[in-house]
Amino acid sequence: MEGELQREGDGLYDKMSGIGAHEVIIETPDHMATLSDVEEKRIEDLFWAFRDRVLDLKKDDRLRYVLFFKNHGESAGASLEHTHSQLIALPVVPKRVLEELEGAKKYFDYKERCVYCDIIRQELSSNTRLVLETDHFVVACPYAPRFPFETWVIPKLHQSHAETLTAQATQNLASVMRSTLRRVDKALERPPYNFVMHTAPLQESSNPHYHWHIEIIPKLTRVAGFEWGSGFYINPTPPEESAKFLRDAAL
Amino acid sequence: MEGELQREGDGLYDKMSGIGAHEVIIETPDHMATLSDVEEKRIEDLFWAFRDRVLDLKKDDRLRYVLFFKNHGESAGASLEHTHSQLIALPVVPKRVLEELEGAKKYFDYKERCVYCDIIRQELSSNTRLVLETDHFVVACPYAPRFPFETWVIPKLHQSHAETLTAQATQNLASVMRSTLRRVDKALERPPYNFVMHTAPLQESSNPHYHWHIEIIPKLTRVAGFEWGSGFYINPTPPEESAKFLRDAAL
Repeated sequence: MEGELQREGDGLYDKMSGIGAHEVIIETPDHMATLSDVEEKRIEDLFWAFRDRVLDLKKDDRLRYVLFFKNHGESAGASLEHTHSQLIALPVVPKRVLEELEGAKKYFDYKERCVYCDIIRQELSSNTRLVLETDHFVVACPYAPRFPFETWVIPKLHQSHAETLTAQATQNLASVMRSTLRRVDKALERPPYNFVMHTAPLQESSNPHYHWHIEIIPKLTRVAGFEWGSGFYINPTPPEESAKFLRDAAL
Repeated sequence: MEGELQREGDGLYDKMSGIGAHEVIIETPDHMATLSDVEEKRIEDLFWAFRDRVLDLKKDDRLRYVLFFKNHGESAGASLEHTHSQLIALPVVPKRVLEELEGAKKYFDYKERCVYCDIIRQELSSNTRLVLETDHFVVACPYAPRFPFETWVIPKLHQSHAETLTAQATQNLASVMRSTLRRVDKALERPPYNFVMHTAPLQESSNPHYHWHIEIIPKLTRVAGFEWGSGFYINPTPPEESAKFLRDAAL
């Protein structure tokens, strides 16, 4: 964690120092269990652990972003068998995060509304891509998913940073994640998957245009030449079908 | 191929019609051969087929880009066993292509030189990431590769469009691709791989900032949560080591 972060630059030659953190959160002592097998309280603890680590890492102002994610199953990139999540703290805001922040701001400037709040309204009213709804969250397959069964967990409360979640909402998130992952397991016969927390950068106090959420990507298709060359994704499964499968997966 | 292409828009709501083309180029009648097994003339024919198809597809001005690529091996996304390449013509310039064009222009504006011409000069002078050099091409592992053994084939002649290649250079490209793919096969025991042609958009006459090239990506690592969330790639293999392996792979 040595070195100095240069914040200014001409854009082409911005330098960053090689500081950061990589932490593994072990979700249960049970070597055979998966995250969808464990009791709700353990999933709640996972989100508390994330929050605690973010609040601690944030104190180091050289760190600009904490990426929180899970790789489940070998073909989704899991290199350890024992169920775990990870966080990687970076001295820079990642490219994909910047793109999403910019996209959200562009929409906000145009519509004077948050794009994620609009997604919630649309998914609740159309009801065709909705997986489940609770007091605090909406789970839906997005309108233009990159992958079959791509599923987003969006908090109803418009907040940019996931670590500001209340205790009650954190408890609800655990229940929502458990239900969603169990539906994915049931509908797709326990597939490999990734989830990624999408949240605002560490050193921003609050971003009025952004709305944190979690994206779950079951690993069912392969990224190949077309995707590498274009940045576009070929997805053979309409989100309405994915959502129906997930809704109908009896738990 | 019906429908109308809207070229103007406010950026947020640009519409495109669902036109395009997807073509498969079968590289040999031999069901068991791979592209690195076939004689040089067949690889030359592949590039002629690409050129002929681009010149034909270009006549339809609703088509904005032709993406030419190959998926070799199941885990690189090949869905047909018989060796083949593909081209997909699109009514829009893909995101990744736009990013690369913008990056090249930004560098050109800053340095008053082409970034790919600079890469050629640097790789030839440093000689640490060079795989091979011919009259017409430089093959090198890039300075900041996303993947182990990522390898670029760059023409020495500064041209934005691959279809402007001369007959002599096309012949040389076949030899260079054959040698490079055979080295990849030898060094990595015939791994799955993708290659993608990076070339300028169809309806641009010539782009002074851009320089076409081919990127070869052996499929050795998995894209997981960190990559999806950040757009950054974790690569455990320095390009200097990859290049040395490929240089030393006796053919």
